[in-house]
Amino acid sequence: MNAAASATWHNGQRVDALPSLAVDNRGLAYGDGLFETMAVRDGRVLLRERHLARLATGLARFGIAAPPADALAATLGEAAAGNAAACLKLIVTRGAGSRGYTPATDAPTEWLLQRLPWSPPRQDRPPAALRTSSVRLALQPLLAGLKHLNRLEQVLARREFPAPAHDEVLQLDAEGRVACASAANVFCLRDGRLRTPRVDRCGVAGVLRAEVLALSASGVLPPATEADLVPDDVYGADEVFLTSSLRGAWPVAALDGRPLSQGGLASRIMALWWPTGEGGHGS
Amino acid sequence: MNAAASATWHNGQRVDALPSLAVDNRGLAYGDGLFETMAVRDGRVLLRERHLARLATGLARFGIAAPPADALAATLGEAAAGNAAACLKLIVTRGAGSRGYTPATDAPTEWLLQRLPWSPPRQDRPPAALRTSSVRLALQPLLAGLKHLNRLEQVLARREFPAPAHDEVLQLDAEGRVACASAANVFCLRDGRLRTPRVDRCGVAGVLRAEVLALSASGVLPPATEADLVPDDVYGADEVFLTSSLRGAWPVAALDGRPLSQGGLASRIMALWWPTGEGGHGS
Repeated sequence: MNAAASATWHNGQRVDALPSLAVDNRGLAYGDGLFETMAVRDGRVLLRERHLARLATGLARFGIAAPPADALAATLGEAAAGNAAACLKLIVTRGAGSRGYTPATDAPTEWLLQRLPWSPPRQDRPPAALRTSSVRLALQPLLAGLKHLNRLEQVLARREFPAPAHDEVLQLDAEGRVACASAANVFCLRDGRLRTPRVDRCGVAGVLRAEVLALSASGVLPPATEADLVPDDVYGADEVFLTSSLRGAWPVAALDGRPLSQGGLASRIMALWWPTGEGGHGS
Repeated sequence: MNAAASATWHNGQRVDALPSLAVDNRGLAYGDGLFETMAVRDGRVLLRERHLARLATGLARFGIAAPPADALAATLGEAAAGNAAACLKLIVTRGAGSRGYTPATDAPTEWLLQRLPWSPPRQDRPPAALRTSSVRLALQPLLAGLKHLNRLEQVLARREFPAPAHDEVLQLDAEGRVACASAANVFCLRDGRLRTPRVDRCGVAGVLRAEVLALSASGVLPPATEADLVPDDVYGADEVFLTSSLRGAWPVAALDGRPLSQGGLASRIMALWWPTGEGGHGS
């Protein structure tokens, strides 16, 4: 297999020229849409069904017509095939065709898939050092959990502590609870039990987060619960790690310069999740 | 002067073909940008300086480089000239050039101006009937007041009570205070004093709202204050009206089917603000 070449599909059609959207696309005008960022390993999309399920949840909540399932599956397959490692970014918008905030009931969904080069995380990557962002996440149950296109809170947080100088930021919610990193979920292990913040008031319901919770429920990983966590729960944990589709399970070494306890669970999740020839749960 | 024809400018250049943005534009990806919707009457942009000031506030808060002032002014002038009535929609995005939430420090600002046909509100239009949306606005001081591109809360509210069947929706904030309409601010008159919700926790600092507050401060209109309002303040008001750049001051006749007291202040504001040949404050 070859290194991934960049490519783009518009409504399922490969486009050769610089791809573009109409200027009155509602994704641009209002962030009226959703996205998924997926890892491809050895020609297949990792956690594909979980990505599609989250997307379907968001489309239903917003009342956006889903892209034709056959075309979406075919396009994902075409984009993944033959690539040892790639990132696929899918953006689904309500399209154009209406003025003002009221969505047209027959708005033509417009969707884009980008394939981008991507290097999987190396086994020997250093653990992450986090900073706590001053950008707290507003509580909005109607948007919580979804990977929608309204992401200014994450942009502002990363403007405060930009990559690559800063690995990631920890974002608290408006009431001071731990919410998530800008592009990852957070897990804390303590006394053999995993806890991760709820995502029903803010934050994104990450697909690897869901996979970890499922592996926990099936007994493969320690028991896990969704919980209200505060920063002291992070400092007091036996192990802290982030989860994301592109970075896998990433151990956290420090928060705001204060060292955190290290463990081996994140590495175990990487080995379970990440197909390396020995199988895995990445279907 | 003629009726406005649709036209689009991209970074200050008139574009003839279907205008478009790059697919990796951050406005589309994250709603990383701002917009202004302006009314043109008799060849000039109403409340032009207030629109540009609000835009500048937002660009500074997000760290987005402003479009070149000369080019922006020239483009607005070109778009407005010769049009008896038109709507100008300006979208300013951080452009492309970076991956992930971290903005590139040298991101090339990309801006679009659309001119669209528009019919000014008629003097005899019926007052608005409002419904209270179940979509409450999250409290996010970092975004409050700005006309940014993260507008899913407004889209969801209008999906619940769509135009044109419903004139507008009243949106409360997460704590039950009156915030604004989906695309307008709210004023309540009682005992000769005007009150309008604060916009430092959610909502947009409307330009006509600012003009009304300024006309009040200069004694042209009754004294006005920003305040915490609850729905009972709307029901108990002597007069309620909405303000927006495109709809002017719009009296409200009813909220959720319950009639509201009517007054003449909104009409007075329309006459003051709306240039009809007798002058006005719309410069």
